[in-house]
Amino acid sequence: MAVVKVHGYPLSNDTQRVLACLYEKDVEFEFVNVHLGAGEHKSETFLALNPFGQIPALEQGDLKLFESRAITQYIAQEYSDKGTHLLPVSGSNKTMALVQLWKEVEAHQFEPPSTNLTRGRNTQLREIQKRNNLIAVFLCVLVRFLFTFFGMTTDTAVVEENQGKLDKVLDVYEARLAQSKYLACEKFTLVDLHHLPNVQYLMRTEVKKLFDSRPHVSAWVADITARPAWSKVLDLQKPKQ
Amino acid sequence: MAVVKVHGYPLSNDTQRVLACLYEKDVEFEFVNVHLGAGEHKSETFLALNPFGQIPALEQGDLKLFESRAITQYIAQEYSDKGTHLLPVSGSNKTMALVQLWKEVEAHQFEPPSTNLTRGRNTQLREIQKRNNLIAVFLCVLVRFLFTFFGMTTDTAVVEENQGKLDKVLDVYEARLAQSKYLACEKFTLVDLHHLPNVQYLMRTEVKKLFDSRPHVSAWVADITARPAWSKVLDLQKPKQ
Repeated sequence: MAVVKVHGYPLSNDTQRVLACLYEKDVEFEFVNVHLGAGEHKSETFLALNPFGQIPALEQGDLKLFESRAITQYIAQEYSDKGTHLLPVSGSNKTMALVQLWKEVEAHQFEPPSTNLTRGRNTQLREIQKRNNLIAVFLCVLVRFLFTFFGMTTDTAVVEENQGKLDKVLDVYEARLAQSKYLACEKFTLVDLHHLPNVQYLMRTEVKKLFDSRPHVSAWVADITARPAWSKVLDLQKPKQ
Repeated sequence: MAVVKVHGYPLSNDTQRVLACLYEKDVEFEFVNVHLGAGEHKSETFLALNPFGQIPALEQGDLKLFESRAITQYIAQEYSDKGTHLLPVSGSNKTMALVQLWKEVEAHQFEPPSTNLTRGRNTQLREIQKRNNLIAVFLCVLVRFLFTFFGMTTDTAVVEENQGKLDKVLDVYEARLAQSKYLACEKFTLVDLHHLPNVQYLMRTEVKKLFDSRPHVSAWVADITARPAWSKVLDLQKPKQ
């Protein structure tokens, strides 16, 4: 079978999701570092792998994949006999339906507030500023000044809003994890794996308290972040000796 | 087999996605209209179906599912022998990987700008206003006044930004559809079906020009919106005689 090549960047959440999956499945791969600063992800070569110009991308012979969750699904199915079983080995369509359901919950409920919090910046004003319009930029500066003058920062407001959203998501997770060891079923699956990059980052921020205050969520975080495959992903971020 | 119950609202994009799938698969179902205006989606009964309080939800015996794309995946697999084959009937994991990839593209690249355009309102200021803070509300009103005074509307800016994003996505679609009749492969799949609600809505707006100006995208839109199963979904929106 052709060698698996992963094009990505070790600090990117989406790249980490794919790497965690490859380590769990014990699949050998070649890592190609994409230099984002040099704009390599917008180069013709990279756009042939992913026309949206986003990392990561997977290459295996003539197969070219992108979108991290599509890549992990492919790896989990293609290497079903190797390493950790990341999808239910047997069972009805109903078991698989629960995996799909909680995969969607991660992507559409958990990730949006988590990503906004990991970015830790005011996306609203940033978006307006991108519009390259002098009046808009002036108004943004004015808004920022007024918010600061009144002792508020829009960054704080955005953080509070996203913390509120995450809080509600974690309420649902706490109830779910009180019934089931992992989110989809009693075994670690792709669903839990997909959470790892954002969870790891948020545990280094003040948002940690939202996880720590919920016993089942807290135990789940301790469990999934202690997996050897995840440690290997984190090791890639350490400077080489 | 227990009867399929769909709890939703006929005008909701996510509900339409599930209904289109059930009609394609020729699966009988009972439709339970959730009265959003009366807050039924936040009732205890509905939260037992979906703890996030969002439509649609599917109920079949003791199986309770939510997240529209997880529901369609379940229906496509559970009723694989009935109606239209919405997933590749045979073929390698690589064919299935392409379906997964383009499903992710719909969810993460196509839907965000499309949803912002279908909402057609300024999400930025709306989000700030939700914060229930008098000073924030005052600042929002001020910003809105200043933008209007300078002959700009932030709504226009948001629309332009999302049109720009959709434009780039449709460039990728045009190239893809020049190679393949449908997005994932040569046959209509869940991927194309998932696009239907947003595509149908956008074709009634000025954004239609973005689709019409691309021959392959335009042919694809004409093809998927003409499917009899989709007509049945649209019929549900018509007032009863």
